Amino acid sequence: MYIPQASDLPQKTRSILVSEIFGNTVQGEGILIGKPTVFVRTGGCDYRCVNCDSLYAVLPQYRSEWNPMTAEAIFAEVQRLAKYTPLLVTLSGGNPAIQPLESLIDMGHAAGYTFALETQGSIAQPWFAKLDYLTLSPKPPGMIGTQPTKWERLDLCVSYARGTQEDRGPQTSLKIVIFDEEDYSYAKYVASRYPGIQMCLQVGNHTPPHVAQQVDLSGVLNRLDWLIARVHKDQWHNVTILPQLHVLLWGNQRGV
Amino acid sequence: MYIPQASDLPQKTRSILVSEIFGNTVQGEGILIGKPTVFVRTGGCDYRCVNCDSLYAVLPQYRSEWNPMTAEAIFAEVQRLAKYTPLLVTLSGGNPAIQPLESLIDMGHAAGYTFALETQGSIAQPWFAKLDYLTLSPKPPGMIGTQPTKWERLDLCVSYARGTQEDRGPQTSLKIVIFDEEDYSYAKYVASRYPGIQMCLQVGNHTPPHVAQQVDLSGVLNRLDWLIARVHKDQWHNVTILPQLHVLLWGNQRGV
Repeated sequence: MYIPQASDLPQKTRSILVSEIFGNTVQGEGILIGKPTVFVRTGGCDYRCVNCDSLYAVLPQYRSEWNPMTAEAIFAEVQRLAKYTPLLVTLSGGNPAIQPLESLIDMGHAAGYTFALETQGSIAQPWFAKLDYLTLSPKPPGMIGTQPTKWERLDLCVSYARGTQEDRGPQTSLKIVIFDEEDYSYAKYVASRYPGIQMCLQVGNHTPPHVAQQVDLSGVLNRLDWLIARVHKDQWHNVTILPQLHVLLWGNQRGV
Repeated sequence: MYIPQASDLPQKTRSILVSEIFGNTVQGEGILIGKPTVFVRTGGCDYRCVNCDSLYAVLPQYRSEWNPMTAEAIFAEVQRLAKYTPLLVTLSGGNPAIQPLESLIDMGHAAGYTFALETQGSIAQPWFAKLDYLTLSPKPPGMIGTQPTKWERLDLCVSYARGTQEDRGPQTSLKIVIFDEEDYSYAKYVASRYPGIQMCLQVGNHTPPHVAQQVDLSGVLNRLDWLIARVHKDQWHNVTILPQLHVLLWGNQRGV
């Protein structure tokens, strides 16, 4: 007997693998820093970044903790956490671009919610055009080992984000996590490749949960200080330089 | 013999009282947080806020430190600090709305620079229409003693910021500094009074230079934690909640 697989179903009705749904909190990074939001963190990722701060949503050994949920069930939980007042929903991961999120976005929009998605840009989806905000954070070579950025895929993400006749497309930004000079050079290259897209530089946390219990706060702030000076040295003025607010506030705590 | 007074001259040629010009640094607060900028801090203020972090640009006893400068001289210094690459110039104070800044803005625009101005909104100027960004930060009653907000003046600031046929007007936001529940209530009132304007809540620093040498960082972060919870309790979702990045990074240090 043939047992239907998830991949056999039309994409809109396939279930979404969810690692966690939490909030209401504030977005801690990027151009939406400080905005109240509920996070939907999907499970599964095509990358294995050295300094990943959410390996529990990435590594297969956590798969049993990820719930296959319908868009309806996810949206019901989002509404409960938002106390039924429309807000910004942040789709994160893992890599949320793997999941069939289109119907969740449609459902939320109909109720007045807005959607931001964060992805490394290695998987492009036509439904990116439906988002309100898209953050593309391609990873510097040092973060993903020998795996180089697949530029044609990032190009495709940018292309889908331009929108369609029906969907005007999200406000798109690039976010590069920076630990050192090599990462910084990569960010400069990305900026030169996509000159029209808003760029955000984010200082990395070298003490994520799998490395240390306690975040090295002064180390993170020192790196921010260095990064600001580095950017000034190049007279790179049309960029935004930010820390992760949640790391400053809550360290490595999960679910905030 | 009649000696001409500054106030006799046409506004465009009057000199500007400058407390300090510094940068390149990053904007530490509000909707432009993280953006590289040069600050022009003018001297003189119509307010005496309890927790003012730049009394050296406010109190008359510092007046001898303020330089009367022409727009040309200020812009030359801005260009030097920006290494002759256009960037965001932040006009701050004191209350910069007291000063004749119009020709400085015109001059900078002609060279590709953009301008943000920060003011409490107690003095309105038609040239606000020329700005690229305007941050209005009316002060909660606890911060200015018994002096209540002059709403008709804030209304006029908002009105000028709508622009004219020649100038499309700045991106305007409201920023309220919050220490306690009373300040928070004031912010809620301001938001209800100006529903169309982006609102930013900023946690106050109870350890500014004239109170303490060292900033009470954990106190500031605890207040941020409280403020986020407070906003969530009200399901206030269309607001931005931020700390002062420069306080986290550099404490009470001046000129950064």
